[in-house]
Amino acid sequence: MAQAPGRPLITLLTDFGRADGYAAAMTGVILREAPQARVIDLSHDVAPFDIQSASYVLATAAFEFPAGTIHVAVVDPSVGSRRRLLIAESEGQRFVLPDNGLLDVPRLRRRAWRWWQVTRLPRLSHPAAPTFHGRDILAPVAAALARGLPPARFGRQLTEVPLRLGLAPAAQRDGALRGRVLHVDRFGTLITTIDAAALRRLAQGRAVRVRVGRRVVSRFVRTYTQAPRGALVALLGSAGWLEVSVVEGSAQQVLHTRRHDPVMVTRR
Amino acid sequence: MAQAPGRPLITLLTDFGRADGYAAAMTGVILREAPQARVIDLSHDVAPFDIQSASYVLATAAFEFPAGTIHVAVVDPSVGSRRRLLIAESEGQRFVLPDNGLLDVPRLRRRAWRWWQVTRLPRLSHPAAPTFHGRDILAPVAAALARGLPPARFGRQLTEVPLRLGLAPAAQRDGALRGRVLHVDRFGTLITTIDAAALRRLAQGRAVRVRVGRRVVSRFVRTYTQAPRGALVALLGSAGWLEVSVVEGSAQQVLHTRRHDPVMVTRR
Amino acid sequence: MAQAPGRPLITLLTDFGRADGYAAAMTGVILREAPQARVIDLSHDVAPFDIQSASYVLATAAFEFPAGTIHVAVVDPSVGSRRRLLIAESEGQRFVLPDNGLLDVPRLRRRAWRWWQVTRLPRLSHPAAPTFHGRDILAPVAAALARGLPPARFGRQLTEVPLRLGLAPAAQRDGALRGRVLHVDRFGTLITTIDAAALRRLAQGRAVRVRVGRRVVSRFVRTYTQAPRGALVALLGSAGWLEVSVVEGSAQQVLHTRRHDPVMVTRR
Repeated sequence: MAQAPGRPLITLLTDFGRADGYAAAMTGVILREAPQARVIDLSHDVAPFDIQSASYVLATAAFEFPAGTIHVAVVDPSVGSRRRLLIAESEGQRFVLPDNGLLDVPRLRRRAWRWWQVTRLPRLSHPAAPTFHGRDILAPVAAALARGLPPARFGRQLTEVPLRLGLAPAAQRDGALRGRVLHVDRFGTLITTIDAAALRRLAQGRAVRVRVGRRVVSRFVRTYTQAPRGALVALLGSAGWLEVSVVEGSAQQVLHTRRHDPVMVTRR
Repeated sequence: MAQAPGRPLITLLTDFGRADGYAAAMTGVILREAPQARVIDLSHDVAPFDIQSASYVLATAAFEFPAGTIHVAVVDPSVGSRRRLLIAESEGQRFVLPDNGLLDVPRLRRRAWRWWQVTRLPRLSHPAAPTFHGRDILAPVAAALARGLPPARFGRQLTEVPLRLGLAPAAQRDGALRGRVLHVDRFGTLITTIDAAALRRLAQGRAVRVRVGRRVVSRFVRTYTQAPRGALVALLGSAGWLEVSVVEGSAQQVLHTRRHDPVMVTRR
Repeated sequence: MAQAPGRPLITLLTDFGRADGYAAAMTGVILREAPQARVIDLSHDVAPFDIQSASYVLATAAFEFPAGTIHVAVVDPSVGSRRRLLIAESEGQRFVLPDNGLLDVPRLRRRAWRWWQVTRLPRLSHPAAPTFHGRDILAPVAAALARGLPPARFGRQLTEVPLRLGLAPAAQRDGALRGRVLHVDRFGTLITTIDAAALRRLAQGRAVRVRVGRRVVSRFVRTYTQAPRGALVALLGSAGWLEVSVVEGSAQQVLHTRRHDPVMVTRR
């Protein structure tokens, strides 16, 4: 189903937190410039400057929204530099964000994208502050898109590929599937770069074991309730990635794992 | 007053936090499946797996909303197991949640409820992930209710009582009223299971004292400004429960109290 | 641009956090009493009782919203005392809040304001709890304003000035501009009480240096990318105040600065 006609959705994803008013200022600008818009907070709790976590949130949530939704992502340590500002589009979802890798986790990267560089800014009531393009450029651009202006209004379509984070996709060699910890979530669950299809290709219907650091996880479950509280388990998570979890506990605390640590899957 | 016609309200209460995109994914699904709905975040900051805190939030906030509001509560450590999913209704407020005690704090328990078990799922665009029923079952059910489908569409009405947390209500015996700490809030205030009516029955118009652990609180106030900063006071809180508080401080830090600790009230 | 007709905006700013249901209860009351309203969370993450931080958030965000927006601010340690409740108005933005200095940071103080004291309460479905005027008085007043009632409906216009926090504005003497740290944000950036106009008057086109505690900051930048990661820099921030920052780091951690610490600017 599409959006309610005339009431465009704009989501916000930032590393601003909620204690300082920066995220609220962006919301105010959008509602001032596009009075019919509905503003949804994807998250403002991304760790400061953490582009990869923001990318994970986009991969997890953005494509659940109705077609036509505009996602504004502002994790932007290079604000004010010559880094480009982009509009991106895939399957009816549009994104307004700096060109710094925010769309480069595995699940987003393999989508078909169209990109525009933002060079013609919307008319502003005051000059853009060099340290807050979220409020002064990206929010007004999103509001203008919500009012119906096309992406091409703001600049030319890009042919080259925007910046990437450099996250290698999981790869199979010597009978082992090698990936990394992509994200550690609130529950301490480790989400890896290994997806369901790669797992199936490796397993060929047989059991597998997962190695994280020095620990081997050989219990593979479909749900957390298939193992007792405290058990270390592997499973295919709700976003389609291999996950390592402790039932009603934290795999991160048990395994002392960090993001980017290697993960290896082998057949038993 | 009722809701704005045609723009149903759906609230979300989870233990997902806001840093990972899970809560945002639920919001996206609801807005995709019920484009006219308005989604309100009750809270996503409930501690992981803390059913009782979530229940306290529902007791504090849910019945302030206009009749017809749909509340989706997802604190669900047993996701994917055989635990039931429920629709509950009381005085025009509807709830969509797992059957794990989420409606079992004292103030909610004594309401008149109707219950339905969710067994006939709404049509899904992809199979439900076994670890994320919030996104794949509860959100679509809430969206379908918001579009006007009746609860009975999803399963049969229950006659037996759903699961309970096992929190004993406060009880009077030997001239003392005995309850427990139900919740510790952000300000370190202790909210107890003892309500205004029970207090009045005990006090019969005379002064009372409150015992928490080894400390006795004999100063009973109506507002925090009736005692100096730092004073330990008891009062009837805004939700109708006996509370123990430190003025502009934290009773939890002063008393080293934990949830479920006993609280006793006696006449002086 | 003004608001969408018939769909008034109400923002909420509190120190309630989001884990206890208090903020959600206010949202419920507003949507019950003004079904057409849209409720936006400015922030609920202000530190408990921290009036000055709340004031900073209002200064940063409130005037970005479309004219006609109603801002409800509840940081209210004296709730239930004789402190007054106010409606304030400036340039089409309205505020509903306790009279405790919430509008007293430099940027808000110099605006032209009209004030009303709230003495005639809206009809309530139950008596106001003495410890939760946010839910039982301020939210209903905001909802009534949103329905179109004028501020004068709730009490007389004030002629005297409401309470102030006592923050001295920055002042120039002996060739130095002296101010204070007004706020420390999520990134550890120090926002000072010194504004752009005062800086220009001092600098007269020449370079300046900034002293915070014992450290001197002599690198003045327009954007963070003009200095290497870890560099200590001064800049004019996005809200028009002098800021001291560490590039992709925390000035607070490097300088061990606290709010209210003195800041001095001199010409080189």
